[in-house]
Amino acid sequence: MEKVKAGIIGASGYAGAELVRILMNHPQVDLVGINARSYLGQAISELYPGFYQTCDMVFEDADVVIEKSDVIFTALPHGASEAFAVKCAGKKIIDLGADFRLDDEADYQQWYNLPYQHKELHTESVYGLSEIHREQIKKARIIGNPGCYPTSISLGSYPALKNGIVDGTHVIIDSKSGVTGAGKGLSDNTHFPRTNEAFAPYKAGAHRHTPEIEQMLSEMAGEKVMVTFVPHLLPINRGIISTMYYPMKKDMTLEEVHKIYTETYKNEKFVRVLPLGKYADLKFVKFSNYCDISLHMDERNSTLIVVACIDNMFKGAAGQAVQNMNIMFGLEEDCGLNMIAPSF
Amino acid sequence: MEKVKAGIIGASGYAGAELVRILMNHPQVDLVGINARSYLGQAISELYPGFYQTCDMVFEDADVVIEKSDVIFTALPHGASEAFAVKCAGKKIIDLGADFRLDDEADYQQWYNLPYQHKELHTESVYGLSEIHREQIKKARIIGNPGCYPTSISLGSYPALKNGIVDGTHVIIDSKSGVTGAGKGLSDNTHFPRTNEAFAPYKAGAHRHTPEIEQMLSEMAGEKVMVTFVPHLLPINRGIISTMYYPMKKDMTLEEVHKIYTETYKNEKFVRVLPLGKYADLKFVKFSNYCDISLHMDERNSTLIVVACIDNMFKGAAGQAVQNMNIMFGLEEDCGLNMIAPSF
Amino acid sequence: MEKVKAGIIGASGYAGAELVRILMNHPQVDLVGINARSYLGQAISELYPGFYQTCDMVFEDADVVIEKSDVIFTALPHGASEAFAVKCAGKKIIDLGADFRLDDEADYQQWYNLPYQHKELHTESVYGLSEIHREQIKKARIIGNPGCYPTSISLGSYPALKNGIVDGTHVIIDSKSGVTGAGKGLSDNTHFPRTNEAFAPYKAGAHRHTPEIEQMLSEMAGEKVMVTFVPHLLPINRGIISTMYYPMKKDMTLEEVHKIYTETYKNEKFVRVLPLGKYADLKFVKFSNYCDISLHMDERNSTLIVVACIDNMFKGAAGQAVQNMNIMFGLEEDCGLNMIAPSF
Amino acid sequence: MEKVKAGIIGASGYAGAELVRILMNHPQVDLVGINARSYLGQAISELYPGFYQTCDMVFEDADVVIEKSDVIFTALPHGASEAFAVKCAGKKIIDLGADFRLDDEADYQQWYNLPYQHKELHTESVYGLSEIHREQIKKARIIGNPGCYPTSISLGSYPALKNGIVDGTHVIIDSKSGVTGAGKGLSDNTHFPRTNEAFAPYKAGAHRHTPEIEQMLSEMAGEKVMVTFVPHLLPINRGIISTMYYPMKKDMTLEEVHKIYTETYKNEKFVRVLPLGKYADLKFVKFSNYCDISLHMDERNSTLIVVACIDNMFKGAAGQAVQNMNIMFGLEEDCGLNMIAPSF
Repeated sequence: MEKVKAGIIGASGYAGAELVRILMNHPQVDLVGINARSYLGQAISELYPGFYQTCDMVFEDADVVIEKSDVIFTALPHGASEAFAVKCAGKKIIDLGADFRLDDEADYQQWYNLPYQHKELHTESVYGLSEIHREQIKKARIIGNPGCYPTSISLGSYPALKNGIVDGTHVIIDSKSGVTGAGKGLSDNTHFPRTNEAFAPYKAGAHRHTPEIEQMLSEMAGEKVMVTFVPHLLPINRGIISTMYYPMKKDMTLEEVHKIYTETYKNEKFVRVLPLGKYADLKFVKFSNYCDISLHMDERNSTLIVVACIDNMFKGAAGQAVQNMNIMFGLEEDCGLNMIAPSF
Repeated sequence: MEKVKAGIIGASGYAGAELVRILMNHPQVDLVGINARSYLGQAISELYPGFYQTCDMVFEDADVVIEKSDVIFTALPHGASEAFAVKCAGKKIIDLGADFRLDDEADYQQWYNLPYQHKELHTESVYGLSEIHREQIKKARIIGNPGCYPTSISLGSYPALKNGIVDGTHVIIDSKSGVTGAGKGLSDNTHFPRTNEAFAPYKAGAHRHTPEIEQMLSEMAGEKVMVTFVPHLLPINRGIISTMYYPMKKDMTLEEVHKIYTETYKNEKFVRVLPLGKYADLKFVKFSNYCDISLHMDERNSTLIVVACIDNMFKGAAGQAVQNMNIMFGLEEDCGLNMIAPSF
Repeated sequence: MEKVKAGIIGASGYAGAELVRILMNHPQVDLVGINARSYLGQAISELYPGFYQTCDMVFEDADVVIEKSDVIFTALPHGASEAFAVKCAGKKIIDLGADFRLDDEADYQQWYNLPYQHKELHTESVYGLSEIHREQIKKARIIGNPGCYPTSISLGSYPALKNGIVDGTHVIIDSKSGVTGAGKGLSDNTHFPRTNEAFAPYKAGAHRHTPEIEQMLSEMAGEKVMVTFVPHLLPINRGIISTMYYPMKKDMTLEEVHKIYTETYKNEKFVRVLPLGKYADLKFVKFSNYCDISLHMDERNSTLIVVACIDNMFKGAAGQAVQNMNIMFGLEEDCGLNMIAPSF
Repeated sequence: MEKVKAGIIGASGYAGAELVRILMNHPQVDLVGINARSYLGQAISELYPGFYQTCDMVFEDADVVIEKSDVIFTALPHGASEAFAVKCAGKKIIDLGADFRLDDEADYQQWYNLPYQHKELHTESVYGLSEIHREQIKKARIIGNPGCYPTSISLGSYPALKNGIVDGTHVIIDSKSGVTGAGKGLSDNTHFPRTNEAFAPYKAGAHRHTPEIEQMLSEMAGEKVMVTFVPHLLPINRGIISTMYYPMKKDMTLEEVHKIYTETYKNEKFVRVLPLGKYADLKFVKFSNYCDISLHMDERNSTLIVVACIDNMFKGAAGQAVQNMNIMFGLEEDCGLNMIAPSF
């Protein structure tokens, strides 16, 4: 079979560089071009020396990259991907940014302070949470690749909301992210002596992933779900973990809930429902495409506690993007994604 | 004025060693003796080389330590302090363990699986959250020094609950603790390669600090408060931070709530209500006796988000114990406790 | 082609678990059995939850594992592998421990305080630094897989010593290792609050890798090389980096030395001589089989400074073991080892 | 006694902020003013929230600060302090930068590419390694406060060089520094995801502290000492540790060398020569003014290995500056500097 020709627009950022790392070893893909506006003509191995002698590809002009690609990954700040997407007529696009995630333009305008520039593109796009939107992804031309926080939260909530086990009127979601989530750009908050041995929340109740989370959870529940979402910055490199507090709606034991979760995900390689008594831990999903979920019950308060974690750069960005590509091109869904998390 | 003669039972553990570090530089205290059952005859500087040439005190028999002390700090596993307390007739005792924290023996029995051995001692003891129980502490002989999690949670909740601003029917508390909270004992979960770059909850909804938290919050609210409490292990050395989710009961703005908080704590040196827009961060309380509190509002869900953080070893253990000692002996409350958190 | 059947004796330790992780995704290997004396009957995913649902293999009796394997990896404390090796008649053995590394039994006795139990085995074994002993490895039945420190030091020294560029009379080697080097066993020195934000040397001038280092460097130089070797413990998980101080013997510029290094390793995928001006950094070899080398000159003192780094668990243990297996079985040398170090 | 009025020029950087933290609690000092050119009118607690409500001093114009101070600390990039020093006629100056450290202007010009602007100032200045230059410091008006690397190296080398125990013809010094050494300014090399779990040398054989080190060691030895100095960046916040390799000149045992070290420093509170068998560890000097020294011998190569470590921000900068101030003003040398390193 001919390999898929893949190109990346915005390959100098963390999500883009992780895509390069994954695609370089993907047996069914030829990475044919990479672009990064600020580094044209430079080798990616200059920016990320881990690529030295393994991938010394040079950043090229976006048009050149698009021209030779079957599928284009865009890994850009919000508001920037539409301009490239319009140039990709007839080609498949997987956008790792925020621009194709929200169904309702009004939400996008409210949270991102921008209108859509090319409304027509959004009629061709689907939100691509691989496990849940597989059928739509197969047929779509443009994928809005889910955000890192929403991926952990959606996968952790799906069986409970879909089966009406819990009440979605008001869900508390306390998430923690590694510092790669803040990207490659320098800031006081990511300066090592400031960040190391520190921990704090940020954008409490005001993070831009909130409408995406509520969109997904509402879709699952079949009714409006509202969340109080508070992200925190963890002094580690990678990983996102979300602790979710769901009031029980049905009178079920933890064992019964656990059974529904395991049943729901029994055919999903990348979602692991841990045995009861275990705790989902960032440690065991890092550098892999897995989402680990653990379930706990506060019986005194009839509250289901769901913990879901992923590698924010992998399942939360580049890994899921490749998973979606695999689905779009009819490849094995785990092709090139079988990395096992190192335990140490 | 004559200095207070202080002794420590259980000085080999983390809380005990931190007590030594603080008391060594306390201008009104003579640290006259330290005990640690497993290390009798050894110098504390053997265990903690930071003390070398500065404090080479040798662990002595508990009776010897008690004999020469005016005040005895006990820093022991639960169930172990009563046996020493009975030997301290007429002397003041500050227990850093769990044995004098719960008002109701039934709670103690339920969560710690032990009965009280010496019930009479508990009639002389008070729970010593310095800022809130100052008057009782002044008169008490025995202090149950608050747990680390409860200290952060109580100080963060007090103004809201006392003033009926929030609803305590069901409070979600998501806490994160540095690894020192697990103590000096070795375990797989505190082995460096396992813990570093990891993050997970533990004892979700089942931690032993739960009854202590509910006791304190209920006392503040004047009615039963119930909490879902989930602690997490942070891959840093020190610090506890609690993110609390309170449904609003009164129709107030965040500014109004903030004003009540600042008013409540205006005379409390060690509790800092941060300006609106700032986030409490472990970084800025570590190695100090401060509790930092930041307030946030999710208006979409009428939820007050309170973030409170402390150094778990300092304000969450040894520092507050010394603060309580200062209160008991009529010293300046901040005497020996004026350390400022290093910012890097 | 039929896959190689591989078994691991001592798969519960860090090196063993890393072997499992690599072999699980090796396209030419069937991992047919794993053994760990203390965990017989348990799944490796119990010990290392990252394997859950991906590798739930159960630890079996050593004899069972040996029986069904073509190649047996032993990852055991020193002194323990010979007893298994004698049971592997006619099968290939790759020992990740120290027992087949030293040419001279007297050295082994001096540094490990043990005699050989089965001297005959040592006539069939070769020291397996893949890049340097490739031809011997092809023909050998038993491989003494190099230690982590010696691997970094040997690869960093080879071109300089072999070409007589530097003087080996007395070489200073200052090495730093991540905590995984200390293994899975608990100790005060690897307890998180003790190790985190700490740094110190250990076994200065007395580490057991010293004779192995001198054996290798002397072989390269063709004359006796003596080293002062001081390892340090780095508060990170993985990686070993060695800074070596070689007095120049020939009158050459840094550029000339660099040219010899690049020429020497031009066909070696896993050894990267960095461009002049760059510094070898653990960051860019972690989770990969690469050894990065950077060269620097202190012209004021005619001293060549060589910096070489590897992932101690990968190229320094399991990765090189698999590389050696590939060589022994006539596979592509990089088969299953093409991982690229993540940059963040 | 009237308190010393102290002012700081350049108080927004790390060394300056650490000075503020120490001086705020110094019983014999009034910190009367702080300056930072880029932050005039802002409170230092805005930059470093740990100071909130404890030190909300506002950055003032340098002239104002100088005017009201008895002693002025300058904590500035090289080349910047002379311009302030000339304005401090008759006042004492302690410069934490590099401008008053080198005896020979030619060295300064060579390594810093700058001439002295005010040569006359340098006739009034002395290099202030407290333990070694105590008598000169007492009488000096201007102190060149030692660099962080040189402090650890000088204190570690002094007894050996002064007593002719070792050969200084060519000394290898392998040092490792925490990231605070790189200061508050943002850079790719101090971006958390880049720095965390990384380790590498930098400026091998070319660091600007080299002439300062050689100046000090030569002064001690009474003859020219040459060093190969290679610093490395440690992924921790604080601390500098230097491993020094000295060829033995005298035929002495390690015990004899150790005895000379302990004798030399027996009256020095802040220099601790550890018992033989122990290793100096950053852990036990952090947040304190101590320098810990451990001694080791590679008898096979007649090489003395000296390990010396300090907190780079404390004994390596602000702490030693305060120690020097104490000496200059006839205060107890440890006044305000009795902090004990936390062990966890």
